[in-house]
Amino acid sequence: MKEPPVTSRVFSGIQPTGVPHLGNYLGALENWVALQNQYPSVLYSIVDLHSITQPQDPKLLRTNILDMAATLLACGINPKKAVVFQQSQVSEHAELSWILGCLTSMPRLRHLPQWKMKSKQKSEGSVGLYTYPVLQAADILLYKSTHVPVGEDQVQHLELAQDLARIFNHRFGELFPEPRALLSSTRKVKSLRDPTAKMSKSDPQASATIFITDPPDAVALKIRRAVTDFTSEVTFDPEARPGVSNLVAIHAAVASISVEEAVSQATGLDTGAYKQLVTEAVVRRLAPIRQEVERLQADPAHLEEVLARGACRARELAAPVLREVRRRVGFC
Amino acid sequence: MKEPPVTSRVFSGIQPTGVPHLGNYLGALENWVALQNQYPSVLYSIVDLHSITQPQDPKLLRTNILDMAATLLACGINPKKAVVFQQSQVSEHAELSWILGCLTSMPRLRHLPQWKMKSKQKSEGSVGLYTYPVLQAADILLYKSTHVPVGEDQVQHLELAQDLARIFNHRFGELFPEPRALLSSTRKVKSLRDPTAKMSKSDPQASATIFITDPPDAVALKIRRAVTDFTSEVTFDPEARPGVSNLVAIHAAVASISVEEAVSQATGLDTGAYKQLVTEAVVRRLAPIRQEVERLQADPAHLEEVLARGACRARELAAPVLREVRRRVGFC
Repeated sequence: MKEPPVTSRVFSGIQPTGVPHLGNYLGALENWVALQNQYPSVLYSIVDLHSITQPQDPKLLRTNILDMAATLLACGINPKKAVVFQQSQVSEHAELSWILGCLTSMPRLRHLPQWKMKSKQKSEGSVGLYTYPVLQAADILLYKSTHVPVGEDQVQHLELAQDLARIFNHRFGELFPEPRALLSSTRKVKSLRDPTAKMSKSDPQASATIFITDPPDAVALKIRRAVTDFTSEVTFDPEARPGVSNLVAIHAAVASISVEEAVSQATGLDTGAYKQLVTEAVVRRLAPIRQEVERLQADPAHLEEVLARGACRARELAAPVLREVRRRVGFC
Repeated sequence: MKEPPVTSRVFSGIQPTGVPHLGNYLGALENWVALQNQYPSVLYSIVDLHSITQPQDPKLLRTNILDMAATLLACGINPKKAVVFQQSQVSEHAELSWILGCLTSMPRLRHLPQWKMKSKQKSEGSVGLYTYPVLQAADILLYKSTHVPVGEDQVQHLELAQDLARIFNHRFGELFPEPRALLSSTRKVKSLRDPTAKMSKSDPQASATIFITDPPDAVALKIRRAVTDFTSEVTFDPEARPGVSNLVAIHAAVASISVEEAVSQATGLDTGAYKQLVTEAVVRRLAPIRQEVERLQADPAHLEEVLARGACRARELAAPVLREVRRRVGFC
């Protein structure tokens, strides 16, 4: 029984952790926008089932889900091109996850980054946190996805999805393509307060992180306070001069120019004046996104409708795959 | 927000492991039949999601599911009184299991009997096997079940369901009743070949176990070969005379008489003659069940229809509960 050839399909998920920061936007979301124009089928899921592997405040979680939907649309995800949906609204994710969990050995998960990182922080993790990568594999395989944009920290998790595709196919007959990583040339945006660390939403220093909805004066203040060094000239040398190089990288990314072009625009400016230039470039890029996020946030019914339509389309894709899985496993 | 008072509801599950033996019938199924007349709402699930925590042959699994449905009906489960359904046909089980897994700490599961027993046999178990008791808790709580008939080996698993009801209620507001154990006065039917061990379907000695579909001559042969001792008189003394006492217990159970009554019927008989009497009693009890199983097995379409109707009713009960869980957690 030969399956028809599978067309390329991109799947990716993002946790509803509130409004993304500039690093998320330039690292992942910008790439997501590009991918929707490059692949015939694209699914982007707000993975709320994953988010509850850490304790969440229910009201805040609901707000964060809608905020993330607003953000995705505002950043340029087009629901006519990409299926945007909330993971928990498509039951098939949890169902396939159970089945794949029965094909995963316990030790296989012990050394995966998610568990190693987060269970230590809390001294002991939940079953959900431990089995998280199995649900991730289910997210991907449920749509017979062929390509998955991932950051480097997620490569091992994608390998589990590849393993599970192989294990399933071997045991129950060819069904899942082995999903391939789309390693995005992730622009690593650094913390403005410590340019040796990644920009992070949970940075204790508020001015370390630019959120994509920050108003212009907040952006200006954060960039003004950005750590640089005692050389006033602007050069790009991430090893020796991480602070100013981070600003150059941000400038280049938000203005869609090369690093060299950004440095040449800084000719004659000291770091103080350059910070103003970078601020203007960041504000120019973020302003329309912020306005669109605010407009969308004011209309939660519209966001809910977009998510409902997305869940409906996701279900249409997931249902026949899960039906076939059930049949192969022997449930029907 | 006060919940309306919950009426009593019984939930229990049975793995589709082929035709049950006499021990299953007298220990659990007979009790299930009684409970459907005692409680206003009763659900019996063929738990196929649990069965795949051990490797299964898909074709055999499908057969076993239908055989189990046939057996339940033949034993007297009435689908008009009890909701009989296949667990995998109700997505809400896996969904609630994911959510409850996020409330369960990893060490909580480590010492539960299921994992300790079965992971040792295989040297390493699957994620499904480890998290099995969480799915069991979901099975029970999904219907706001109040009573769960359990064998002694399942008491610790039920305690997890009770804990998770408390944890959920504490964190998200009162929703689940704490399910109570219905410890059935389980008649412990012993192996016919080793009356110190329980009767078991996986006994390597074929004549140790009577299956409820065994034809009369097979029953006669197995009982004739049953281990007894060198005293020919029939007495009931499980410690000193486990073999003959097991026959007395079986006799009493299948004939619905007391142990004393069974012993008195054996007056004047040696063990050989008594074995014939026991055989007749077992055959008399099992014959109508066997005939009904065979009649039902010949009509898989009918069995599928019964299961489909059951799944439909189970979903009607499960959907509003899961909807409320989703709302409380913050998904919607």
